[in-house]
Amino acid sequence: MEFSDRLYEAIAKKQSRLVVGLDPHIDLLPPAMLQGIDRNNRAQVAEIVRTFCLGIVEATHDLVAAVKPQVAFFERLGPEGFRVLEDVVAAARACNLLTISDCKRGDIGSTAAAYAEYHLGSSAPSASGLRGLGADCMTLNAYLGEDSLAPFSRLLREGRGFFLLAKSSNKGSADLQDRMLQHGEQSIPVYWAVAQLAQKLADNHGLGQCGYSSVGIVVGATFPVEGEQLRAAFPRLLFLVPGIGAQGASGADIRGCFDQNGFGAVANASRSVLFAFRENSGISWQSAARNAATSIRNQLNAAVLQT
Amino acid sequence: MEFSDRLYEAIAKKQSRLVVGLDPHIDLLPPAMLQGIDRNNRAQVAEIVRTFCLGIVEATHDLVAAVKPQVAFFERLGPEGFRVLEDVVAAARACNLLTISDCKRGDIGSTAAAYAEYHLGSSAPSASGLRGLGADCMTLNAYLGEDSLAPFSRLLREGRGFFLLAKSSNKGSADLQDRMLQHGEQSIPVYWAVAQLAQKLADNHGLGQCGYSSVGIVVGATFPVEGEQLRAAFPRLLFLVPGIGAQGASGADIRGCFDQNGFGAVANASRSVLFAFRENSGISWQSAARNAATSIRNQLNAAVLQT
Repeated sequence: MEFSDRLYEAIAKKQSRLVVGLDPHIDLLPPAMLQGIDRNNRAQVAEIVRTFCLGIVEATHDLVAAVKPQVAFFERLGPEGFRVLEDVVAAARACNLLTISDCKRGDIGSTAAAYAEYHLGSSAPSASGLRGLGADCMTLNAYLGEDSLAPFSRLLREGRGFFLLAKSSNKGSADLQDRMLQHGEQSIPVYWAVAQLAQKLADNHGLGQCGYSSVGIVVGATFPVEGEQLRAAFPRLLFLVPGIGAQGASGADIRGCFDQNGFGAVANASRSVLFAFRENSGISWQSAARNAATSIRNQLNAAVLQT
Repeated sequence: MEFSDRLYEAIAKKQSRLVVGLDPHIDLLPPAMLQGIDRNNRAQVAEIVRTFCLGIVEATHDLVAAVKPQVAFFERLGPEGFRVLEDVVAAARACNLLTISDCKRGDIGSTAAAYAEYHLGSSAPSASGLRGLGADCMTLNAYLGEDSLAPFSRLLREGRGFFLLAKSSNKGSADLQDRMLQHGEQSIPVYWAVAQLAQKLADNHGLGQCGYSSVGIVVGATFPVEGEQLRAAFPRLLFLVPGIGAQGASGADIRGCFDQNGFGAVANASRSVLFAFRENSGISWQSAARNAATSIRNQLNAAVLQT
C-alpha cells in the first residue's frame, strides 16, 4: 500500500494532522527522570531517553497521524542511541503509528543506497537481507541531485515514502533556499527547484489512490506565504510542515499548506508536546503531553477545516 | 592546534595528499572473510567490517594524511555499526591518523548541535559531557544556511574542522549545484554560493599558521575545471577532493585543486585502495591495499608537484 494512502487513512481515522516529533533533548527531560543518573554516562542517558520516548508514544499514539524521531538526538548517544531509536520505531509501529525518520540524509551511489536500506528497510530479521530501522518514511536533503535519490525512489514501490527538504523553518533557510535561480526567462527560488525535483520523482512513480504522491517536501510553518504558493503549484506533493508550537507558528500559519479538503499535509510539533509538563504543574509528563497533543490536534483541525 | 595546521603537518610529514575512505561495502569484502558468516546477521557482519577497517588502518596509516569513514556503511548496521565506527576512529587516532567523519549532516538549532557534539566531541569518557565519536573533522551539507552551521563553527576553536559540500563528484551534482543564481549584476552557480558561505565562516574564525582555514569545501575530482576556478577564487579554503580511482578521475584532474606549493587539498580514494585485492591475486588484501595506497600517493605527488 502506498505511503501516501497509509498517511491519508491515519489522518482520516484519527482526525489528526499532527505529527509528534520525538526530539529527546536531554536537558529538557523531566527532572525526576534524570535524578540519580550520571548525565555523562551514555548508557544511562539512553535508558532515560528510551523510557521518555516510549512514554510519549504511549500517551499520544491515538491522537497523532505519525511520529517523527529526530535521529540527531539518538545519534548523539552513539550505538546506545541507535539501539533506542530502533526500539522506539518498533514500539510506534506496534501501535499502528506511522514513523518518519527525520535524518535529512543525502549522499551518492552505494552510500545513498546504504542510508535508504537502513532507514526504510524492514526491521524484521530475515533471510533476505540485513535488517534496518523499519521507518515508513524519511527526510532527505536533495543537494546532491536526482541520481542521489534513486535508491529512495526504488523503495516507493514497497510502500515507503520520503520528504525532500525544500524550505526549512529556520531563519537561515533564506541563505541558500531563497536565492533566485535563472529558469528560462523567469527566475525561481532554490527551494522551488527542489519542489520541482520532488514533482519529477512523483511523476515517475505515480500517485496513491488518495491523489497524492508518496514523495513530499518539507515546508516550514514559519513561512506561510511560501507554503501557500507551493501548495498551489504542487497539488500532488505531500507536505511535512515543521515549526508549529515552540518555533512560533500557529495553526492559521499552516492553513495554506493544506488542500480544500484539509488533506495534503501534516504538521509537526515537538517541544510543545514533549515538554508540555514544564508549563503544567500537578499532572504527569505523560498527561501533559496528551493534553498538549489533543489541543494542538484540535487547533490544527479548526484552522484547516474552517470555511 | 588548528585542524588545518594538523592536516598540513600530516601531509608534510608523510609526504602524502591521500585520504583513504573507509567505505566497507559488504559485497566487496574479501570472500575468505565472509565465508561461514550469516550475511543477514548484523552482529556478524559488523565484526567483519571491524576487522576489515582496522586492517586497512594498520596497512596504510603511515602512507595517508587522514582516513575518512563513510558513516552510511556503518549506519547500515545500526547500533552494531556505530560501535564499530567508534572503534575504527579510536584505532586511527591511536596511530596519529587524522579522521574525517563523512556523514554530510545538516540540520537546525539544537539538532545541529547534537550532530556537532557527537561527531566532533571527544571520545574520552569524562565528567564534562557525554562522549562522542571523536573525529577531527566532518563533512556537512549547507542547504539549511549559515545558522545551521554555528554549532560546528564553535568547535573550530577546539581544533576541529569541517568541509561543506560544494560540488559533489556525481553526475547529478549538476541538477542543483550548477544552477545559476542571481548575484548582483552577475550570476554564480549554487556551489559557488556554498564556497562563499564557507569563506564567510573562515573569515569569522581566522586562519591556521599554514595559511589555510579549518573550514573547507568538498570539490569532486571529476570536475577539474570547477576545482581550478574555486582554488583561484578561494585561496584560503581547504579542499577535500573525492572521486579519484574508482570514480574515474586521475591525479592530473585534481592538480588545479592544489596551490603552487602542493598544499591546500587532500584527495580521497576509497574502493581503489580498499578493494585493490580484487585486481591482485597472490597477495593479501592488506598488502594489496598498501601497494595501492603507495601508488596513488606517489601519483598524486607527481601530479601536484610537477613543475
